[in-house]
Amino acid sequence: MESLTHSENIIMFLMMATILLFARVLGEIAQRYQQPAVLGEILAGILLGPTLFGALAPDWNSWLFPMQGHSAVVLSTVRNISMVLFLMVAGLEVDLATVWKQGKTAVSVGVAGLCIPFAVGITAASLAPMALGWEGKLPPMLFALFFATALSISALPVIARTLMDLKLYRTDLGMIIIAAAIFDDLTGWIIFAMILGMMEHTSGHSMGIPQTIGLTLLFAGIMLTLGRKFVQHTLPWVKAHTSWPGGTLTYALVLALPCAAFTEYIGIHAVFGTFIAGVALGNSSHIREHIRTVIEQFVQFFFAPLFFGSIGLTVDFVQHFDLGLVLLVLGIACVGKIGGCTLGARLSGMAVRQSWAMGFGMNARGAMEIILGLLALQFGVINERLFVALVIMALVTSMISGPMMQWVLGRPKRRTLDTYLSPGTFCGELFTTEIDEAISILAQKASSAVNLKHEEVFAAVKYREDLMPTGVGYGVAVPHAKIEGVTTPVVAVGLSRPGIDFDHPDGLLAQVIFLVLSSPHDPNSQFEIITEITRLFANGYMRERAIEISSYTEFRGLIRSEGQG
Amino acid sequence: MESLTHSENIIMFLMMATILLFARVLGEIAQRYQQPAVLGEILAGILLGPTLFGALAPDWNSWLFPMQGHSAVVLSTVRNISMVLFLMVAGLEVDLATVWKQGKTAVSVGVAGLCIPFAVGITAASLAPMALGWEGKLPPMLFALFFATALSISALPVIARTLMDLKLYRTDLGMIIIAAAIFDDLTGWIIFAMILGMMEHTSGHSMGIPQTIGLTLLFAGIMLTLGRKFVQHTLPWVKAHTSWPGGTLTYALVLALPCAAFTEYIGIHAVFGTFIAGVALGNSSHIREHIRTVIEQFVQFFFAPLFFGSIGLTVDFVQHFDLGLVLLVLGIACVGKIGGCTLGARLSGMAVRQSWAMGFGMNARGAMEIILGLLALQFGVINERLFVALVIMALVTSMISGPMMQWVLGRPKRRTLDTYLSPGTFCGELFTTEIDEAISILAQKASSAVNLKHEEVFAAVKYREDLMPTGVGYGVAVPHAKIEGVTTPVVAVGLSRPGIDFDHPDGLLAQVIFLVLSSPHDPNSQFEIITEITRLFANGYMRERAIEISSYTEFRGLIRSEGQG
Repeated sequence: MESLTHSENIIMFLMMATILLFARVLGEIAQRYQQPAVLGEILAGILLGPTLFGALAPDWNSWLFPMQGHSAVVLSTVRNISMVLFLMVAGLEVDLATVWKQGKTAVSVGVAGLCIPFAVGITAASLAPMALGWEGKLPPMLFALFFATALSISALPVIARTLMDLKLYRTDLGMIIIAAAIFDDLTGWIIFAMILGMMEHTSGHSMGIPQTIGLTLLFAGIMLTLGRKFVQHTLPWVKAHTSWPGGTLTYALVLALPCAAFTEYIGIHAVFGTFIAGVALGNSSHIREHIRTVIEQFVQFFFAPLFFGSIGLTVDFVQHFDLGLVLLVLGIACVGKIGGCTLGARLSGMAVRQSWAMGFGMNARGAMEIILGLLALQFGVINERLFVALVIMALVTSMISGPMMQWVLGRPKRRTLDTYLSPGTFCGELFTTEIDEAISILAQKASSAVNLKHEEVFAAVKYREDLMPTGVGYGVAVPHAKIEGVTTPVVAVGLSRPGIDFDHPDGLLAQVIFLVLSSPHDPNSQFEIITEITRLFANGYMRERAIEISSYTEFRGLIRSEGQG
Repeated sequence: MESLTHSENIIMFLMMATILLFARVLGEIAQRYQQPAVLGEILAGILLGPTLFGALAPDWNSWLFPMQGHSAVVLSTVRNISMVLFLMVAGLEVDLATVWKQGKTAVSVGVAGLCIPFAVGITAASLAPMALGWEGKLPPMLFALFFATALSISALPVIARTLMDLKLYRTDLGMIIIAAAIFDDLTGWIIFAMILGMMEHTSGHSMGIPQTIGLTLLFAGIMLTLGRKFVQHTLPWVKAHTSWPGGTLTYALVLALPCAAFTEYIGIHAVFGTFIAGVALGNSSHIREHIRTVIEQFVQFFFAPLFFGSIGLTVDFVQHFDLGLVLLVLGIACVGKIGGCTLGARLSGMAVRQSWAMGFGMNARGAMEIILGLLALQFGVINERLFVALVIMALVTSMISGPMMQWVLGRPKRRTLDTYLSPGTFCGELFTTEIDEAISILAQKASSAVNLKHEEVFAAVKYREDLMPTGVGYGVAVPHAKIEGVTTPVVAVGLSRPGIDFDHPDGLLAQVIFLVLSSPHDPNSQFEIITEITRLFANGYMRERAIEISSYTEFRGLIRSEGQG
């Protein structure tokens, strides 16, 4: 079999390692600042590509990331597979039942959020195609259609993540936003698939436009009705009779890949096939919870970084950066989407604040826009200048979505336990079995973190402890107090291998002790921290691991790995 | 960037889906019959390749699995990446501390299990090279060295799985087998790496033999000392400060891929680099438990099937099948390895049965041998006839390993709860809140499954229940009895949404009821089944899910997905 040569193999391994390393590191940093990982991943590609690394060391750059030959084919194929799998995961997020349940409001927001940006886009692209980078190679109608679609689409994965962060996901508002976004995504991708079909026609593809569009709609229709039914009937059997999670994973891939081949064959792109396959799969209640985790990890931490990290490799973001165009695209995109969705929400009777939150929530374009743009670039629908502008628009709208919703609604951000930990309040082994001494040591650390007197903190915690003991069971105790002068909550942690008697309901001595201080004016944090600790330690495994630990870093690692498993 | 064409893309998706589908289905079937999945996966490739599909429909076959052009390059690269990741996982299994702890016995078994097959191999290959398929293209010394190494290597992943199935993994015997297998694998791969180094030299690679061998040993030495230390120090930080499991997964890949590039560069194969990187990673107590699960799922259910399923695509297993050679290789392999290990075990003072178990356990060649053989085939060290014989030898030795150990030691196989479930004993909703009526319904189903009278079963279970109630808490009850005439245990399942009072320790009514019958002569099964049920339902989540369920298939799926998560 024909294969990579010795030196091409070496390059391939180094190339993959480099892209993964940079994309993941910058992705992690982006998440640290509450930004979507895709922001960092794309930035990594920009740094590695012609924009920076290629400009500084062109020879090294073209050695590590060749644009011709077998290595280039492999890189572009990995990118293609990653994109296809990413869209499958995006499809899994789509729950048609949610749209159905939210009914009228969701559809009215969805329709307004689709039609108004679409109309704005068509108008702008028809009035000033040159300003938007149209170069006369394509029929202006196609260009305008694409531009309008690009403005209309939302990014369901980013929106879902943002709502979860703001603890809005399970609320009525959250479900309406999700439903409307599903409606827009589904419609948007079908329109885009049809545009690609027309494109292929103009570029000499054999199938006629009506056939392509007809087959696209037929495919989507069959998959979303019969396909869903098929999954609903066969998947339980697969889950019952094959190894877990391998059987379900294979099932998903073996369903999605031929769909990719089919949509590629009828002249639209493979991503549309896996997206629709993902929708069909995700609508099965059997698959959703578990399989999503498995497939998502698989895609999120390997394929997605490889894909987004490689986007910047082909485009020079400095050379093609056009400030005017970027601002124009960003402006049109925000006005159309925020305006449309807010209007739709108001018309269906939502309150003013909720309606604006709706608009800002739906405005996030995220990864979807970037994939759309990349395909348009590859097919020659748009030029590099507009591509760069679309990428920046996608990133900026995603970045502002969360903070703006938070601001409009006045919601606090969700914080997890690990964000309250710090080296300064980690005591390690307390070397005591006396409850007062343990509280005293922890109060010492906590009080210096909040600049309060040790005696004051100790007295408050002790007073609360004497009212009712704070052993929550499972060998864990959570002495706590609300105390004036604390702004953000503080959690001090101590361990006791012999155990301390906090009068636990289950009779176990406390081996892990969390001291929690919060403000009397903060109604939620204390409750949230204590319930999270209880949840984490409920199975006993965490306590066993925790008492083996000697450093803050290890403890934080334990909490993070369990808290998010 | 150069990329696959429209039609190559279509073929690529279909090719991947086909290989995945066949490999996973046959792999699942192999596992159903207690055989290693790799057996089915390789068979899938044989069916899809020139042996069957290619012989029946050569045009279709070369369309779907092209051997030339971009598609072939992509397939061979996916295969290469899969192989490299598979060896990383194999390396993760290696725990040098185990070898150290088992000390003398393990090393003596390991040395005997390495040297005796090696000596047998060298002798056979020197006396009758032609009979073994040597074709005079290579120095006979290299051929003999390779053949001897191929006989000496074990397959740690298969051995570990077999020991787990037989519940021997945590025993002294199990740990000695694992330690000896680690010793053999590590040494065997280093020798093989050196052979490849010499090969590359004879085929005109620029680096001299001494350099290659020196660099190989230096690389292994540094990775297993400084590399391990480095991982031990940096990984906790990564785990504490990045998202889980993405951070750790990236860490592992970013460490392993450059090692692959390095070993490829010095003239041995990339697999050696990731294997050693895996060893360095797996030796960190921080990484082992969690990360292995994540990386293994990732490799086991996607890359491994793609790899093993594609091996048969390049070789015609019928045309190159030579019964004499197969039997010769199989004979030499078994005599050398079983003899060597059994002898080594006896000499270090182990009992006769244990020593034979040692020999049969170490005899499994599994995937390691196949990878070794494939590389040797690609480098021209062996011909197709010997390759086919080696693959068959690897599969046969892996298949007989478990049953032979079981037979020698008289161990029962471990069974999980789902293997006791059957549609005939699943009652679904019981529509009762009366304990006697519930037991009666379940006894009815169970008694017909074992051909006993209903009254007899009911009386036995009721008698036991009256002695002491069988509510285990968490809303689960396990009425049970040991009763003459039952050969293998029977588990009947009933649900009760309103709940039935089985006098639970935690006061919850039983909503899920398992009736367990076993033989009075079976000391273990009842205990194992009841503890597994308790473990599965201990967090409440399972009960919540279980009472929503209406069909046997769904219930079995729930038990399988949770039991093995």
